[in-house]
Amino acid sequence: MSRKSILAFNKSLVRLLPSSSHPIPIWTVLLSGPSTFRVHESHSHRKCYSQNHSSKFNYSSEHENASGESWNKSGIFGAFTGLTLAAYVAWRKSEQNGVHAATVRMESEEIKKDLPTYKSSEVAIWVTFKRGVYDVTEFVEKHPGGSRIMMAAGASLEPFWELYPVHQRPDVFQILAKYRIGNLSEEDVLEQQQPAEDHFKNEPKRHPVLKQRSLKPFNGETPPSILAEQFYTPNDVFYVRNHLPVPQVDVKSYCLEIEGISIKSSSLRLDDVKKFPKVTIAATIQCGGNRRSDMSKAKPSAGLAWSGGAIGNAKWTGASLKDILKKAGFDPKKYPHPEKVHVQFEGLDSDQSGECYGASIPLTYFLDENFEPVLAYEMNDKSIPIDHGFPLRVILPGIVGARSVKWLSRIIISNQESQSLWQQRDYKVFSPSVTMESVDFNSAPAIMDTPVTSYICSHEDGQVVAQGNIKMQGYAFSGGGRGIVRVEISKNRGNTWEVATIKHKAPSAARNWAWVMWEAEVAVNKQDKEIWVKAVDTGYNQQPEDFKNVWNYRGLVSTAYHKITLNVK
Amino acid sequence: MSRKSILAFNKSLVRLLPSSSHPIPIWTVLLSGPSTFRVHESHSHRKCYSQNHSSKFNYSSEHENASGESWNKSGIFGAFTGLTLAAYVAWRKSEQNGVHAATVRMESEEIKKDLPTYKSSEVAIWVTFKRGVYDVTEFVEKHPGGSRIMMAAGASLEPFWELYPVHQRPDVFQILAKYRIGNLSEEDVLEQQQPAEDHFKNEPKRHPVLKQRSLKPFNGETPPSILAEQFYTPNDVFYVRNHLPVPQVDVKSYCLEIEGISIKSSSLRLDDVKKFPKVTIAATIQCGGNRRSDMSKAKPSAGLAWSGGAIGNAKWTGASLKDILKKAGFDPKKYPHPEKVHVQFEGLDSDQSGECYGASIPLTYFLDENFEPVLAYEMNDKSIPIDHGFPLRVILPGIVGARSVKWLSRIIISNQESQSLWQQRDYKVFSPSVTMESVDFNSAPAIMDTPVTSYICSHEDGQVVAQGNIKMQGYAFSGGGRGIVRVEISKNRGNTWEVATIKHKAPSAARNWAWVMWEAEVAVNKQDKEIWVKAVDTGYNQQPEDFKNVWNYRGLVSTAYHKITLNVK
Repeated sequence: MSRKSILAFNKSLVRLLPSSSHPIPIWTVLLSGPSTFRVHESHSHRKCYSQNHSSKFNYSSEHENASGESWNKSGIFGAFTGLTLAAYVAWRKSEQNGVHAATVRMESEEIKKDLPTYKSSEVAIWVTFKRGVYDVTEFVEKHPGGSRIMMAAGASLEPFWELYPVHQRPDVFQILAKYRIGNLSEEDVLEQQQPAEDHFKNEPKRHPVLKQRSLKPFNGETPPSILAEQFYTPNDVFYVRNHLPVPQVDVKSYCLEIEGISIKSSSLRLDDVKKFPKVTIAATIQCGGNRRSDMSKAKPSAGLAWSGGAIGNAKWTGASLKDILKKAGFDPKKYPHPEKVHVQFEGLDSDQSGECYGASIPLTYFLDENFEPVLAYEMNDKSIPIDHGFPLRVILPGIVGARSVKWLSRIIISNQESQSLWQQRDYKVFSPSVTMESVDFNSAPAIMDTPVTSYICSHEDGQVVAQGNIKMQGYAFSGGGRGIVRVEISKNRGNTWEVATIKHKAPSAARNWAWVMWEAEVAVNKQDKEIWVKAVDTGYNQQPEDFKNVWNYRGLVSTAYHKITLNVK
Repeated sequence: MSRKSILAFNKSLVRLLPSSSHPIPIWTVLLSGPSTFRVHESHSHRKCYSQNHSSKFNYSSEHENASGESWNKSGIFGAFTGLTLAAYVAWRKSEQNGVHAATVRMESEEIKKDLPTYKSSEVAIWVTFKRGVYDVTEFVEKHPGGSRIMMAAGASLEPFWELYPVHQRPDVFQILAKYRIGNLSEEDVLEQQQPAEDHFKNEPKRHPVLKQRSLKPFNGETPPSILAEQFYTPNDVFYVRNHLPVPQVDVKSYCLEIEGISIKSSSLRLDDVKKFPKVTIAATIQCGGNRRSDMSKAKPSAGLAWSGGAIGNAKWTGASLKDILKKAGFDPKKYPHPEKVHVQFEGLDSDQSGECYGASIPLTYFLDENFEPVLAYEMNDKSIPIDHGFPLRVILPGIVGARSVKWLSRIIISNQESQSLWQQRDYKVFSPSVTMESVDFNSAPAIMDTPVTSYICSHEDGQVVAQGNIKMQGYAFSGGGRGIVRVEISKNRGNTWEVATIKHKAPSAARNWAWVMWEAEVAVNKQDKEIWVKAVDTGYNQQPEDFKNVWNYRGLVSTAYHKITLNVK
C-alpha cells in the first residue's frame, strides 16, 4: 500500500468519523477507539474502569505469601510474538554470539544521508524509532498484533514498546530496518528522549520458584518436578501467563458488566456475585504454548520457551457463570443460530489505547448442561491471587487457558468472536508449511478444546539415575472434558509399552476437567536411555509420536509424546 | 476351574434359582436367561418380539435396487473375533499353505483311545464338537463372546457355530483342541449329524459392488473409490456391518418399547414414531474397525479385514430421539448422578438364546442440547433399507457405529451399561502390549467418540500414475461432533505438507456430524513414491503418524496417517 492509497483510505474513513482531516487524529480514532465488534460497548464503561480502578491496590491484604524480597530478573524473551523464523534464527545466533539488545548499535541511531528528512507532523502513516522513520504499512498484515502496531502511527514506537517490551530484541530491530524510509529531525529526536513511564511498576511479587519466561509482562512456569507432587497446584507456584501489565483493582468500586444480544444489561459488584450459590470445580488450566520448548527442539518456533510447567490444576470456587447469565435473562436456547453467537469476555488489563485483553467462546458450549463455567473468586480455597485474576476470573474448563480471562470486567453476548488479537491471530494452529510470511490468520479457528497430552515430571532430560527400579511420575490431560483412559511408558522406542498407574484423579463426574497424576515403576538398565510417555483420552485420541509433522510456527498445542534421555549409571 | 468346583458353583446357584438340580438346566437358566442387567426387562417382551416378527418379510417392496442375482460368496473371515495372535498367525500360515477349513482333518473327528468315553448327558459343563469332548471352562474368560460360549454347555457347539460361522476356521479348531478331555460316544455323534438350520437363509440381496468381508453374518464395505464421489453415500453401496442374522420384521406388528428408571414404560408402533416432528441430520457412521487392514500391516490384528470403506455418510430422517423420550417422561436433568446412568438400545437381531444385539451410551450425552440423536426410518430420503435397520435405527451422531443399533426394538434407561458383549468386550481399545491372553476387559471403556481420521479414496496403494499433476480425493472425519480444520498431504514423508481443499462439508451447525470430502492437485514425479494424508480436527487432535505405537490386538480406531505408494511412470 503506497502512502497515497493509505491517505485515500484515511479519507474514506473520515467520512465515517465525526470530524478531523489530519491523518494523526484519524489513526488515533481508528486504532484506539471502539471497532465494529464493540457493538455493545459504550465509551462510558471503558472510562468507568480506568477511573474506578486507578487507585493503588494493597498487595499484602490480598496476595498470600508475598515477601519483601525482590526476585524479578530482567528478561528479553517474548511474551507474545510471531516473528519470522529467519529473524528468530538470526536472533538466536546473535544471542549465541553474545550480541544482546543493549549492546547492539541500532541503525536507527544514525542519520542516513541518502534519505530525506521529515518533521514528526509529516510521518502520519509511518512510525519513528530513535533516528529512523519507517513505513510499516505492509507489515501490518504480518504483525502478530495486527493493526495494534498502528497505535504508533504518526509517532514514535518507543512508548508502545515500553508497554510491549518483547519488541526490544535484535530480530525485531532487523525486521524494522527493512521498512526504513527516512531520518527523524534532530529536534524531534530530542523531544522523544523523555523518561518513559514504567507500566509494570505495580506488579505483584512472585514466588522465586517460578521459572521466569518473561518479565514484562510477567510469565513464569511451575518447575515440573513440583507439579507431580500434588493434585492441586498451590497458588503461589501456579504458572502465571500475563499478556499485559497486571491491572490495579479497587475491589470497592469493581463491577462486572453484562450486556449483549437478547439479554438485559446489568452491572454486578463483587458482593453481588458472591450472593449467587457457591460452586466449586476441579479444573486444569493450560497455556496453549505449554511444552513449546519441546516443539522448538524439532525446529525453532516463536513464543515463550515454556517447558512442561505452563499448566496447573486447582479448585476454582465462585458463582456459576450460567447462573449469573440466567439472571441477566440469558437463555442459550433462544438463539436461532447458536453456532453464530459468541460469549465474549474482557479483562481489566489493557494497553495505552484502552484495548483490553479479550477472548470468546461459541455460545454452543452453553447448550451443554455438562459444561460448568465458573466466575471464580477463590482458588484452592483462598481468595484468588492478583496474578490469577483477582477479584474475578472466568474459568472455562476444558478450554485453552487463554480464554479464561482474568480480572474479568465484562461479558458480552455478541454475533461475532472477540476481535482481540489473542482470539484472531494468536492462539491459532497452522500447518507445518505455514510461516509468518505466508500465514492467513483466517485459515484456522481459535483454539478451544486442547488435545491429549502427558508429561514426565519426576525426571529431567539428561538426568543421572542408578540402574534398577525408578519411580516415574507425571501428569496427563485432555481438553473438552475428555478423561484419560490410560498412560503408557516405553523404554525401547515403542517396541513395548507399560501401562502406568493413575494415582490421582478427580471424583467421577459427567466431564473430566482435571488432569490425572500417574506413576510407574520402571526398571532401567544401561541400555534403557530413552523413556517415552503417551496418554490416550476417552475419545481414544492419541498424542502425535513426535513434533516434525505437527510443528507450527507459533509452537502451540505442543502435545507429542514426552521423551527424555536418562543417563543410567 | 475343575469340574468339581464348577459343580459346587452350580450348586450355589441352585439356591438362587427356583428349582432343578441337574447341571444342564442350571446352565441353561444362567446363560440364556436374564442376567442382572435386565432389571427392566420382562420375559413377555422378549417373547413378544419373536412371535410378532417371525413372519417372512417382503424384500422387494422395501429393499431398493435388489436384483435377482445371487452374488453372495462364501467367506471364512471373522465377523467378531479376538483370537490370540499366535493362533491368528498359525491360521495365516495355514491359509498360505493352502490348508483351508474344509480340507483340515480335525482331531475332533477321531476317537482318542487314551481318553475316556462319555454319554452326552455326562458333559453338562463341557461342550462337544464332532467326536471330541472339551472342557472350555477356563476359556470362558478369554472368549471374546464371553459366557455366550456356555450356551452350548452340555451340548454340541455345532448348532451355535452355524449361527456364528466365524468359528469355522483352523485357528479356532487349534484353540479348541487344547481343551479336549474326551471322546463323544458313537450314538451321540450319529444323533448330532442332523442337517442344521440355516439362520441366514432370509438375508436381503446386496449390491455386487460391496466388498464382502464376511458372509454370515454379512459384512461388506464400499470401495473407497466410490466413497469420494459423493458427499452422501448411496444406500445400496453404504457399508453393511451386521453382527447376527438380519431379523425378519413384520412392520404391522412392530413396536418399540421404552422403559427404565424414572420414565413411564411405553410402546410405540412405527406409525406412532412417524407422528413426531420429522428431523433430518447429515451424519457419518463409521465402524470401529474401519481401516483395520492398514493396522494389520504393522502387525496382524484380529477382526474383519476392512480397508477404508467401513464408513459412509447419509441424511438420516426420522423422529428426534429426545422428543420420543421426552414424551415418555424422560428428563436428563432429573438424575442426580447422570454419569452413572446409561441409555441402552436393543435390536431385533438375536441368537438362539434370545440374546439380542445391544449397546448403550451415557446419559450425559442427553444433557447436551447440541447432541441430535435420531430414530431414523429414512436414509437419504428413502425408506431405510433392511440391512441398515428397517424399520427403525437409532442414529447416534459422532459416536462409533456399533452404538447406532439397527432394527431397534427397545430403549432402556438403566443404571448400567448394556451388558452385551459388543459393549463389554468388543469395541474397546487396549494398550499395544495387551494380547487376548492378558486382556482385562474392564481396563478400557467402550468406544464412544472416535478420533480424527482421513483417507485417500482416489488412488490405491501401488497404483500406476503418470508423472505430472494428479487429482487426489478422499474423506476426513472426527467423532464427537468435532469438525475438520484442515487436511494435509505430504509426498516426501512429512518434510513438507500441502493443505488440501475441502470441497464438500455439511452446512454450518453447532456440531459437525458429517465427514468432509477433500481434494488436492499433487504434482508427482518419479521420486514421489509415498503419499501421506492426515487431518486436524477442531480440538486440534492429530492422527498418529503410524500404527506401531497405537496398535491394539482388535485392530480398532485404526486412524494413523493414510500412506500409499504410487508407481510413477
